Amino acid sequence: MVKYAILGFGVVGRGLAEVMADQREKLAAAAGEDMELGYILVRHDYPAGPFQDKLIRDFSLIENDPSVAVVAEVIGGTDAAYEYSRRALMAGKSVVSSNKQLVAEHGAELAALAREHGVSYLFEGSVGGGIPLLRPLCRCLAANRIDEICGILNGTTNYILTAMAQKGQAYADALKTAQQLGYAEADPTADVEGIDACRKTAILADLAFGVNVDPADIPTRGITAVAPADLELAQALDGAVKLLGRAARAGEAVCAFVEPHFIPQGHILASVNGVMNGCAIRGSAVGEVVLCGPGAGSHPTASAVAADVADAVRHRADPMIPDLGAPGGRLLPADELCSRWYVRAQCGPEAVSAAFPGAEPVYGSTGECGFVTAAMLDRRQLEKKLAAVNGRAAYRVLA
Amino acid sequence: MVKYAILGFGVVGRGLAEVMADQREKLAAAAGEDMELGYILVRHDYPAGPFQDKLIRDFSLIENDPSVAVVAEVIGGTDAAYEYSRRALMAGKSVVSSNKQLVAEHGAELAALAREHGVSYLFEGSVGGGIPLLRPLCRCLAANRIDEICGILNGTTNYILTAMAQKGQAYADALKTAQQLGYAEADPTADVEGIDACRKTAILADLAFGVNVDPADIPTRGITAVAPADLELAQALDGAVKLLGRAARAGEAVCAFVEPHFIPQGHILASVNGVMNGCAIRGSAVGEVVLCGPGAGSHPTASAVAADVADAVRHRADPMIPDLGAPGGRLLPADELCSRWYVRAQCGPEAVSAAFPGAEPVYGSTGECGFVTAAMLDRRQLEKKLAAVNGRAAYRVLA
Repeated sequence: MVKYAILGFGVVGRGLAEVMADQREKLAAAAGEDMELGYILVRHDYPAGPFQDKLIRDFSLIENDPSVAVVAEVIGGTDAAYEYSRRALMAGKSVVSSNKQLVAEHGAELAALAREHGVSYLFEGSVGGGIPLLRPLCRCLAANRIDEICGILNGTTNYILTAMAQKGQAYADALKTAQQLGYAEADPTADVEGIDACRKTAILADLAFGVNVDPADIPTRGITAVAPADLELAQALDGAVKLLGRAARAGEAVCAFVEPHFIPQGHILASVNGVMNGCAIRGSAVGEVVLCGPGAGSHPTASAVAADVADAVRHRADPMIPDLGAPGGRLLPADELCSRWYVRAQCGPEAVSAAFPGAEPVYGSTGECGFVTAAMLDRRQLEKKLAAVNGRAAYRVLA
Repeated sequence: MVKYAILGFGVVGRGLAEVMADQREKLAAAAGEDMELGYILVRHDYPAGPFQDKLIRDFSLIENDPSVAVVAEVIGGTDAAYEYSRRALMAGKSVVSSNKQLVAEHGAELAALAREHGVSYLFEGSVGGGIPLLRPLCRCLAANRIDEICGILNGTTNYILTAMAQKGQAYADALKTAQQLGYAEADPTADVEGIDACRKTAILADLAFGVNVDPADIPTRGITAVAPADLELAQALDGAVKLLGRAARAGEAVCAFVEPHFIPQGHILASVNGVMNGCAIRGSAVGEVVLCGPGAGSHPTASAVAADVADAVRHRADPMIPDLGAPGGRLLPADELCSRWYVRAQCGPEAVSAAFPGAEPVYGSTGECGFVTAAMLDRRQLEKKLAAVNGRAAYRVLA
């Protein structure tokens, strides 16, 4: 019998306490021993139902209790979460986390601290919510040189883009619906500007390429400029517009960016709709695998965090610390990456043919046209040509 | 430094030797120590390129070499594969396998032997080829009561059904193309009759529900009776016909079966085309996740087996033995399971409305119609009504 503690009792924290109580026996089998909830650290008193007697406000009770083997940090942010994670690791306790900001910004440092103190540091819930993603990447695909990771990593923006595509809604209306349904926050900036996807992309790049990427270095564009016409034209071109976080091997360097993409319908990611997330991983032996599921939410995220708690207990003698890489790897500027492009433009078919030979424009209800370029162009080559067609939008095509 | 041995040097065995050589460093990091290929057991001499000096024909060399920690059985079948697996486990060596027939028929017995001898028994490559599937199911989703697993588990049949749907080919022509491309064997029985999918369904049911299912008890229908008209009508009804292996919780019992299904386009499995496999897992906390990728092939399957080799080495002090369950669980007859149905029939719309109120038939190029029943019916209830519409085919609708 070991104890675990939960830091934070928000949506994920409450879900974690519930899921671990609900599947206690099965988790004990996975962990190799029974696990008991010791404490829930909160800042204020909450109505916590069956967990009321576990609430505490003083972290040192956890820090100083030798029966606590694992601390689950689900506070979010980088202030208290960072401090408590450090202190827990230094006290010889494994830490598991669903906090993408903390992992993206301080994960390598916390992993080093875990190594130093012989404990695990796991964060399956930080990317892709409940989707088994980081363990498959690091363990199941260990026999692969990873060549690219590319995912729909934010459910809010995917909900908005799906609503725009399927219901013809404008961006602002789709956002409002998402807020009413609880899929978007009152201040949606971190989601719609791609910041959340950027943090997750950084974590994936770290794990896939062994280079610790600063999320601030990842060029990031969100979905606020995506027009209903883009979704209409993309459908006519047999594709979908999705916000992708991508990290790819480019020679010895790594290229990473977050921006809206055109995904041809033949790719499974084009069928990942609503609040679902999906992530494609290309590896040297396996080819491509695509893992899809709920990228957020109380119990789905708790599912991932609870599995981490069990694995941390199971591996007390042989800690699990995914390799977040060494700092200082060179990120290739995304603008240099060649690809085909989806373009929305205001011009006749002759202008399209002249600037983009072979491209076949389709015309939508706004009178604008959409087409996919045949050539592989980097962004600067593309931009030189956009003026000739009155280009209004251009998104990379997922190869 | 530990050694591993490969039993069999067919498509997977050769791929395994290649992948493990190619990613030796990365696999050593995952395993915690360097791993060297000790032996490749073959029945006849082969041209084996860089691996020529590893070929042996006498299993006792492996059995008696204490430096061999892991044996990878990729022979297939249940004769030599079964005998060598037993002997390896009894000699205190971990066994990993991609042999779905052996795991489905004797996995529980071999797992017990592994437990007895304190070694690992892993078989990630036996279901879904290179897709990370069994580890996600058993480890990442450990905090879930699994409610259903349902997958496109055979690439040959999915290739044939996709070719029939996309090119309008007849079954026999699509099969011939698959054989020419190497996606189907000269004798395609095990694939097209659903036997391969049945074995994989048995393994998934074992792991998900802790009940050791005899594959012979799983009602299994293949795709030989699927008509081009079914694929045409399914598309008109905004869906796809796919061969699914399903295992679901039904009260205290488990229900498992393999048969062609109608999958609505909204479900990701409808977009899993060609030789790709895909598997949906429904869990109590996570909801639904869908894992897709190459379900067969030399290097993809080797990717899964190589990860098992590394994990077996890593866990020598704490063996990994997925729980294949106890024998004797009751399988609920699949006929009792209610669902909506896709029906192909030869009749007018009035006859459809009379027998299936609310159903909306679409008519295809053969003059037959297709529709989806609104009601939840078990197979016997359905069959009583089929005569009234001249029913030609009926497939369950994936909910």
